[in-house]
Amino acid sequence: MSTSTPANTPLTYDQAGVNYDLIDPLKVSAQRAAASTATQLGVHGFNEVKASRGESAYVVDVGPFYMASIVECLGTKTLVADEMAQLTGQSFYGAIAQDTIAMAVNDLITVGATPLVVQAYWAAGGSDWFGNAPRAQALVAGWKAACETCGVAWGGGETPALAGIVENDRIDLAASCTGLINPKSRLSVGDQLAPGDAIVLLAASGIHANGLSLARKLAERLENGYLTEIEPGLSYGAALLAPTPLYSPVTEALYKSGLTVHYSANITGHGWRKLLRHPGELTYRIKTVPPVPAVLRFMQKECHLDDREAYSTLNMGAGFALFVPPEQAAEVVKVAQGCGIQAWHAGQVEAGAKRLFIEPLGIEFSDADLQLR
Amino acid sequence: MSTSTPANTPLTYDQAGVNYDLIDPLKVSAQRAAASTATQLGVHGFNEVKASRGESAYVVDVGPFYMASIVECLGTKTLVADEMAQLTGQSFYGAIAQDTIAMAVNDLITVGATPLVVQAYWAAGGSDWFGNAPRAQALVAGWKAACETCGVAWGGGETPALAGIVENDRIDLAASCTGLINPKSRLSVGDQLAPGDAIVLLAASGIHANGLSLARKLAERLENGYLTEIEPGLSYGAALLAPTPLYSPVTEALYKSGLTVHYSANITGHGWRKLLRHPGELTYRIKTVPPVPAVLRFMQKECHLDDREAYSTLNMGAGFALFVPPEQAAEVVKVAQGCGIQAWHAGQVEAGAKRLFIEPLGIEFSDADLQLR
Repeated sequence: MSTSTPANTPLTYDQAGVNYDLIDPLKVSAQRAAASTATQLGVHGFNEVKASRGESAYVVDVGPFYMASIVECLGTKTLVADEMAQLTGQSFYGAIAQDTIAMAVNDLITVGATPLVVQAYWAAGGSDWFGNAPRAQALVAGWKAACETCGVAWGGGETPALAGIVENDRIDLAASCTGLINPKSRLSVGDQLAPGDAIVLLAASGIHANGLSLARKLAERLENGYLTEIEPGLSYGAALLAPTPLYSPVTEALYKSGLTVHYSANITGHGWRKLLRHPGELTYRIKTVPPVPAVLRFMQKECHLDDREAYSTLNMGAGFALFVPPEQAAEVVKVAQGCGIQAWHAGQVEAGAKRLFIEPLGIEFSDADLQLR
Repeated sequence: MSTSTPANTPLTYDQAGVNYDLIDPLKVSAQRAAASTATQLGVHGFNEVKASRGESAYVVDVGPFYMASIVECLGTKTLVADEMAQLTGQSFYGAIAQDTIAMAVNDLITVGATPLVVQAYWAAGGSDWFGNAPRAQALVAGWKAACETCGVAWGGGETPALAGIVENDRIDLAASCTGLINPKSRLSVGDQLAPGDAIVLLAASGIHANGLSLARKLAERLENGYLTEIEPGLSYGAALLAPTPLYSPVTEALYKSGLTVHYSANITGHGWRKLLRHPGELTYRIKTVPPVPAVLRFMQKECHLDDREAYSTLNMGAGFALFVPPEQAAEVVKVAQGCGIQAWHAGQVEAGAKRLFIEPLGIEFSDADLQLR
C-alpha cells in the first residue's frame, strides 16, 4: 500500500486506529475468568443460562423468569458530534443519547429480554462539560425520549468528572440495561435456530455507532470535511449523526402479536459478519439486500471499499437481524413496519457449512471471518 | 487565602478541581427527567419503588421480588496506580479492580439487595492499554477475585478503545451491578429507620475511591510525592491504593443470621455527611469514632484540614453505616467481624432536627451540609 497517494488508497479499519490483536488476548482471558464466576450464583439458589455467554447479553435464571443485563459503550461518535457543533453551532447530543441507549437496548433484546431499566454513565473530562447547558440539556432530553420509546425506566446513573482520564471537553458515554425474559419461553440464545428459518432484516438509519473511526478518518481526507454534501442539503457529518433506531418496540410488538423469534443478531461492529454470530454450523443465504443509506454509500465510495470490505465492516442498511419461522416472515415484516421500522424478508437459514452468502452481491463469508467468542 | 504559601494553606476539594456547581444543575434536570420515565414500567405490569429514587440504587417491583440496578464509576484512582507503577514497577490493578466493584456493590447493597451480576466497563485510551499484559492480567484477576468475594457472577462487559476521548494510556473503569431483594422484606429504602436505632460503622481500609483528587493534589506538594513514607515501610501511594472492602458478605451474613437492617449508607463522597442521607428529620449521635487509617491521618495533617473538613470529605475510617435495631447492635458487630470486617456500635438515631453530632470530636453537621438529592 502506497503512503504517497493517501486519497486514493483504500481506508481500512486497522488504519483507523483500532488494533484488535492487542485487545483480544485480554478479552479472551477476561471471558474465561468471567465464565468461571458463574458458580457464584449457586450460593443464591440461581444459575446462569450458559448459552448466553458469548451472546450479546448475560442471562441468569432467577426462577419465575430470566434476568438479562448488559453495559455498552457508545464509542467515539461524540467526536463527530463535537466537531459538527463547532462547524454548525448545533448540538447533536439528543441523537447521541439515543445512540447510546440503542447500543445497550438493541443488544439486550437479542436474548429475548424486555428492557426495563437503563442507567446512564456520562464520564466527562471535567466539570466544565456539564456547564454547557444546551449540550447537557440535549443529552438529558434525548436520553429521556429514548427511554420512553423503549418503554424503560431511567433508573439513575453516574456523571463523574474525570480530568486526567477523559480528555478535556470530551465525554465517555455508556449505558447499562437490565431486563427480564418473561415468560421464559421468550429466551433466545440460539437453541431454536434451525434450517428453514427466514432471515428478516430491520432497516438501519445510517452508520449507527460502529465504523466511526473509519468515518472520522475519511472526514480528514475530504476537502470540506464533515460539511461535504452527500445529498442536496445533507452534510456528511449530519448524516453520520442520524440516531440509531431503537429496535425494542419491534421485538415487543412481535411478542404481543404472538410471533416467535428463534434468534436475533444486532448488526454492530463487524458489519454483516454478525449474521454468522450463532455458534452452530448453518448456512445463511441472503437474496435481498436492503437499500444502502446515503452516508454508507458515500463512505464505501470515498474509502474505496469493495462490497466485501463494506459489508464486513458497516451495517450497509441492515441494523438488526431476526431469524423467524418461515411462515411468519411476512407478518414479522408487517409488525416491524407498523412500528415505523422498514423490514425485509431477506433470506433464509439452510443446513450446511457455516457460511453467509449475500447472493445479489456475490459475497461469501465464512466462520474464519468472524471470531467473536 | 494566600497563594504565596501553598505548602501551608489548607487544600480543599474545590481546589482539587471538581466543581459541583457546574455538575449539579445537570444532575437535577437529569434526575427530574429520569423520575418522569418511571411510568414506562407500567406498560410491562411492573412499577418502581419510588423511595429508591435518591437512594444509592434503583429498585423495581417485578412481582415475586424487587430488582435493583446501578452503574458506578471508579473515578480517578487509576491515576495514582499509574504513577505508582512508574515509580515502583508494580501493578496495582488487582486492587483497582476490587475498588471498582466495591463502588457498585457497596452501593447496591444499601437498598437490601443481594448483588448477582456484575458487568465490566473498561474504556481505554487506545488498544495499547490492553497490550500491557501484566497490568491487564492483574485487572482481570482482581476483578474475578472481587466477584468471588461478593458471590456475584461476572456477566461480561465492554473493553472499548476510545482514542480521542480517553487519554492515551489511561483507562476509565466502571461497573454495573444487578441484584435482587429477596425476600421483599429485605427492602431498605428508608421507611424503617426510626429513633432508637443503633448506628454500626464498618471499618474502611483507607481512602477507598473518594477524595482522590485531593490526595493527588497533595502528592504534588510532597517532596517525595507518592513515595513519602507515612509509616515505616509504607509509602503514601501504596497506602492510598489499599483496596476498598467489599461489604456485601456482611449484609448477606446479617440476613442469614436473622438480623434486620433498617437502613444503610455507603460512606463515599461527602464523607460522614453521608450519615445524613436519609430524607427524614432525625438526629444522629455518634459516641465512638473508629480509628483513622494512617493514610487519612496523614492527609488530614498534610492538607491542614480541621476535623470538620476531614470528616465532611473523607471516610475517616468508617466505610459503611448500618442502622439496626438497638438490641441487635452487638450481634451485628459480631457478624461483621466474623466476615473479617472490623465494626463498632458507634452511636444512635434520635428524634429531633436533622443533625449529625460526632460527640468525641465536637462536630455538628446539618442538612444544609448535604444536598445529595
